[in-house]
Amino acid sequence: MLSSDLVATLRAVSTGTITTILLKMGLRRTWMHGPKPIREGYPRLVGPAFTMRFVPAREDLATPESWASPRSTRGAIEDMPHGAFAVADAMGTTIAGIFGDILCARMVKRGVVGLVTDGVVRDIAGVLATNLPVWCAGAAAPPSVAGLTFVGWQEPIGCGGVAVFPGDVIVADTDGAVVIPKAMVEEVATLGPEQERLEAWIVSEVEKGEKLPGLYPPNDAAKARYEASRKK
Amino acid sequence: MLSSDLVATLRAVSTGTITTILLKMGLRRTWMHGPKPIREGYPRLVGPAFTMRFVPAREDLATPESWASPRSTRGAIEDMPHGAFAVADAMGTTIAGIFGDILCARMVKRGVVGLVTDGVVRDIAGVLATNLPVWCAGAAAPPSVAGLTFVGWQEPIGCGGVAVFPGDVIVADTDGAVVIPKAMVEEVATLGPEQERLEAWIVSEVEKGEKLPGLYPPNDAAKARYEASRKK
Amino acid sequence: MLSSDLVATLRAVSTGTITTILLKMGLRRTWMHGPKPIREGYPRLVGPAFTMRFVPAREDLATPESWASPRSTRGAIEDMPHGAFAVADAMGTTIAGIFGDILCARMVKRGVVGLVTDGVVRDIAGVLATNLPVWCAGAAAPPSVAGLTFVGWQEPIGCGGVAVFPGDVIVADTDGAVVIPKAMVEEVATLGPEQERLEAWIVSEVEKGEKLPGLYPPNDAAKARYEASRKK
Amino acid sequence: MLSSDLVATLRAVSTGTITTILLKMGLRRTWMHGPKPIREGYPRLVGPAFTMRFVPAREDLATPESWASPRSTRGAIEDMPHGAFAVADAMGTTIAGIFGDILCARMVKRGVVGLVTDGVVRDIAGVLATNLPVWCAGAAAPPSVAGLTFVGWQEPIGCGGVAVFPGDVIVADTDGAVVIPKAMVEEVATLGPEQERLEAWIVSEVEKGEKLPGLYPPNDAAKARYEASRKK
Amino acid sequence: MLSSDLVATLRAVSTGTITTILLKMGLRRTWMHGPKPIREGYPRLVGPAFTMRFVPAREDLATPESWASPRSTRGAIEDMPHGAFAVADAMGTTIAGIFGDILCARMVKRGVVGLVTDGVVRDIAGVLATNLPVWCAGAAAPPSVAGLTFVGWQEPIGCGGVAVFPGDVIVADTDGAVVIPKAMVEEVATLGPEQERLEAWIVSEVEKGEKLPGLYPPNDAAKARYEASRKK
Amino acid sequence: MLSSDLVATLRAVSTGTITTILLKMGLRRTWMHGPKPIREGYPRLVGPAFTMRFVPAREDLATPESWASPRSTRGAIEDMPHGAFAVADAMGTTIAGIFGDILCARMVKRGVVGLVTDGVVRDIAGVLATNLPVWCAGAAAPPSVAGLTFVGWQEPIGCGGVAVFPGDVIVADTDGAVVIPKAMVEEVATLGPEQERLEAWIVSEVEKGEKLPGLYPPNDAAKARYEASRKK
Repeated sequence: MLSSDLVATLRAVSTGTITTILLKMGLRRTWMHGPKPIREGYPRLVGPAFTMRFVPAREDLATPESWASPRSTRGAIEDMPHGAFAVADAMGTTIAGIFGDILCARMVKRGVVGLVTDGVVRDIAGVLATNLPVWCAGAAAPPSVAGLTFVGWQEPIGCGGVAVFPGDVIVADTDGAVVIPKAMVEEVATLGPEQERLEAWIVSEVEKGEKLPGLYPPNDAAKARYEASRKK
Repeated sequence: MLSSDLVATLRAVSTGTITTILLKMGLRRTWMHGPKPIREGYPRLVGPAFTMRFVPAREDLATPESWASPRSTRGAIEDMPHGAFAVADAMGTTIAGIFGDILCARMVKRGVVGLVTDGVVRDIAGVLATNLPVWCAGAAAPPSVAGLTFVGWQEPIGCGGVAVFPGDVIVADTDGAVVIPKAMVEEVATLGPEQERLEAWIVSEVEKGEKLPGLYPPNDAAKARYEASRKK
Repeated sequence: MLSSDLVATLRAVSTGTITTILLKMGLRRTWMHGPKPIREGYPRLVGPAFTMRFVPAREDLATPESWASPRSTRGAIEDMPHGAFAVADAMGTTIAGIFGDILCARMVKRGVVGLVTDGVVRDIAGVLATNLPVWCAGAAAPPSVAGLTFVGWQEPIGCGGVAVFPGDVIVADTDGAVVIPKAMVEEVATLGPEQERLEAWIVSEVEKGEKLPGLYPPNDAAKARYEASRKK
Repeated sequence: MLSSDLVATLRAVSTGTITTILLKMGLRRTWMHGPKPIREGYPRLVGPAFTMRFVPAREDLATPESWASPRSTRGAIEDMPHGAFAVADAMGTTIAGIFGDILCARMVKRGVVGLVTDGVVRDIAGVLATNLPVWCAGAAAPPSVAGLTFVGWQEPIGCGGVAVFPGDVIVADTDGAVVIPKAMVEEVATLGPEQERLEAWIVSEVEKGEKLPGLYPPNDAAKARYEASRKK
Repeated sequence: MLSSDLVATLRAVSTGTITTILLKMGLRRTWMHGPKPIREGYPRLVGPAFTMRFVPAREDLATPESWASPRSTRGAIEDMPHGAFAVADAMGTTIAGIFGDILCARMVKRGVVGLVTDGVVRDIAGVLATNLPVWCAGAAAPPSVAGLTFVGWQEPIGCGGVAVFPGDVIVADTDGAVVIPKAMVEEVATLGPEQERLEAWIVSEVEKGEKLPGLYPPNDAAKARYEASRKK
Repeated sequence: MLSSDLVATLRAVSTGTITTILLKMGLRRTWMHGPKPIREGYPRLVGPAFTMRFVPAREDLATPESWASPRSTRGAIEDMPHGAFAVADAMGTTIAGIFGDILCARMVKRGVVGLVTDGVVRDIAGVLATNLPVWCAGAAAPPSVAGLTFVGWQEPIGCGGVAVFPGDVIVADTDGAVVIPKAMVEEVATLGPEQERLEAWIVSEVEKGEKLPGLYPPNDAAKARYEASRKK
């Protein structure tokens, strides 16, 4: 499990900074292409990934009747732990909404942090009314069965071109959503806040009129000035 | 023609619910991919489809001079009946705007309900100023002739991956626009309001803390509770 | 250089009108596909193009270390003249942000008019805070080196499907950004204001209930009425 | 109608040369993106366009039963005149084949020159066996109704990004298919053969070791040498 | 298991006919978009689906070292039963080859019928040399780990826009590959041969000069003639 | 310059093996997406990259007249050294051919090894007749100016999603084309032949019936057997 300290630390590190740190650690594909916040003003959110997986619709499988099956999105939602970040692999499908207001309302009740998907939601007005924070690729009216078949949860998935394993950590903000592999969370949480401080100082220097070369990235002189500024 | 009663009934049924009902009737492709409202807060709108059709631009055809031809978008607009929902097949072209402020202003004068297209509009500030409700795929500065040739109206078209025939019924809201085949309008208008009531009750149950399995879709016990709730 | 008179004149001509004029002069591809304003309410902006060019990332080239190279985005920014409109060819890449808050803040300090790119920015909250007007294809968290290698500035580029040469004139508004080839700027500035006046008159006629045929485009009678209206 | 002389002349002019001539006459979009010959070794073929049009499938329209309707592909084929070049607007759909062996066999019987579509055929082995020359975007097993609804023939269409009107002239060879607007056929037939002769001479010069500058395009000296060569 | 009788029957039914039969049974998405035979002249092949699944590459997962893991493509191949048709969900990735000559050679040794994927193979010359029948979307030089992470086998997958479950039946020929849901195999095997006979008769009638209306689909008179022809 | 020894060594290393080696050295994007050989049976070819660059067409720039300018494709070709591998960045454009038979014939005369582009050629029959080995994305009839403007040569470019610098080494075979950064050529030439020998041995082991686990990648026992086999 993710400690509340780790969550608090990561909530202060932007997805931009996290991708820069992971890139330096050798990972280039950690930001999901597609998911965007459906409302302005969400705080940055953090939680362990609870994965869900869809395959294409097939008329013998993807029926309104299938919604009552135990292997359904309903079953998955009832299995979500408090504090989880739901992540759904919809194969980038934008012609059928994976969830509407009813399922999102239930996710709020279960204490889910938010929902990330490379697909879309349906009844977006209703979804917004539930106040579940959602990062997705937009909205479509048709139900999921018009394009998708739900096949399981807590499996490895792809979402927005990124591999996500159950228990990896999701961080989402205005720039979208990133995954931190479980084994790298501690290191990101250690390096992140320092990187944020440094960049804030650089912005303040630029606002004073400093030129970029030597400042960003900082050369030795700039680093010394930064260190001095921190001691004040 | 579409009676004002039918219009009023359908204005209370979401595009999500309509697609679900049509899916149960065997139609999976009724929601148009591409058209989105260009402004927040439109009411749900309903009207019979008045179709328009474009083919690709060819420099000998798609000229500013062609705008004065009787077979032009101008001719089509002057032929639109009061209460019609204009639907334009722009082949998903997003590099040329099919209509700008002048044509949209005239459509308002003619009593058109709104405009749906899988293409884009131009001069979006001007279009917004006309108050014509528009569902489209965005905005582009160039005139239609930069990418498109107008060829006719009130023909069968494709729009956003959906077949639309003149006289089919268009319903558009926050989730986008759907087409109801003329022959199915009565049945959708009969089933829609009941489905809306049931889903509103399910949301209220979820808000009370009910679990999803057995509730959505409702099993016999849930159905009985729902029926009981309606009698209060 | 672009005179302040020319800038003032072009700020009163919409990108829609500019593309129509250029089309009549034989140019069909002058509007960039992709760049959209990241905030509502920017005034129309005008400036000579300062071009930048990226190629795909290659791990031996696109490293955090490369940011300190003289052939870097930093070097380009320090070379931007006051009043320039920065235009970046990002090959339409939407998985890595070309610039974040630090570089945008520095561009503001250098007096840059705005930034146009067919790519995306990163740390969009930070970029918005700098108040640099930006037209781009959205936001992504990863740094440019996750997808792009910067290779130079003030070269011919493609941006959003349009060729841009250093010194061409960029005009950007709600509909996006257009390029006016340097040799055609005078003519556009001559024809643009008159076209705007004519279209405003046409809109006012439509609002009075005039029909489109004969009015838009205007036939001789309409032209006479328009001329008469101007003399009042 | 297209005279047999014109057909014979155009069969000696490559689609490459035709597009160059049309470009000089102001038309940039005359080559269809998508259609490719399904077999090597077809001769260049020429004929007046007989157009067909599809819209997206809708389950209430696109049924095996619809095949017996008079407004069907069968009806269209029985209406094709001898010597026509069939052109089908399939909206670029590649998941359903517009025609299989039976319809293609019938087109051969009717004396159709060939078939061009931006869609695909089905049962490609059977289609090849009919010996109908076909330019298309590949093959798919499903019948047209799995993705398309046939709506009519001899209307203006788009095919591969190009506007095609009934009676325009189609020329197809190894590079694909082009449309010559009816009004421009005479001029193309006049300029084409001369352009072919000039380019053949340029190739022969290159093979002798001549450099490109001054030769292609030819300067006055090269033109003189070319004229001299023709008199031999 | 699939009986050898069923295999023999289905080998005589084209993928085109199978998709038509499944469409009449209500299934529209059974043909995979992407997989094409890499060599001309394969016989039609039939076998129960053995599924494999990839997610996007992540540098900490998709390494040459991962190839030695038990959860690897090697493990999957050693688990394939004789007569199986391998089907790999590569998410349509065309920048990394899922298998090369070594893995394909081993599949031949294990008695696999063939390989279907919406991705690509690598070292296509080597793969062709193994004589494994392959339907895929082309070739790429890079190893799978450049774009993909293998995560498991015999799970539900999507391939080319179609849902495939372990044990569904795959049929592949010149038009590509289709899936027959396990529960529908018997019915397809019953209806398929009769449909093939009917269509062969229709082709022969067309070759005699018969018109299409009334023949395809056959009206009562045509049906009677067909029945009569069968008794000869 | 590339020594003839290096060229000979690299001609014996497949593009598949080169991408595997470069991946182990940290480079994941070295294979170009798009270029395919236009004829079967080319030998593997190797040469230093001679780069060319296009931007989008603009009607005032991309004219038949521009072909006579010194900054033209003609000028570039006359500057190509013997043994160079021409690489053209066409931005993946497939609606206009960058070169036809005349330019390709001249490239053969200049001793160019081959041509690689993410665009297409025109007059493919003529290009094949020149015998210039070409890797491209197909054929189109229109001249380059219908979609592209040539802007320069021997600059850094992107081609098929890969960065290419003048002097990098291109290797092309049946799987397509890869770039080896200049600084890494020696190492690839050292590791490549050994990797080829090892993989050939593994294939021979598979053909003898060996299982994959432990063999590919080889464990210590397999490595010992391989070493022993080499001493025979």
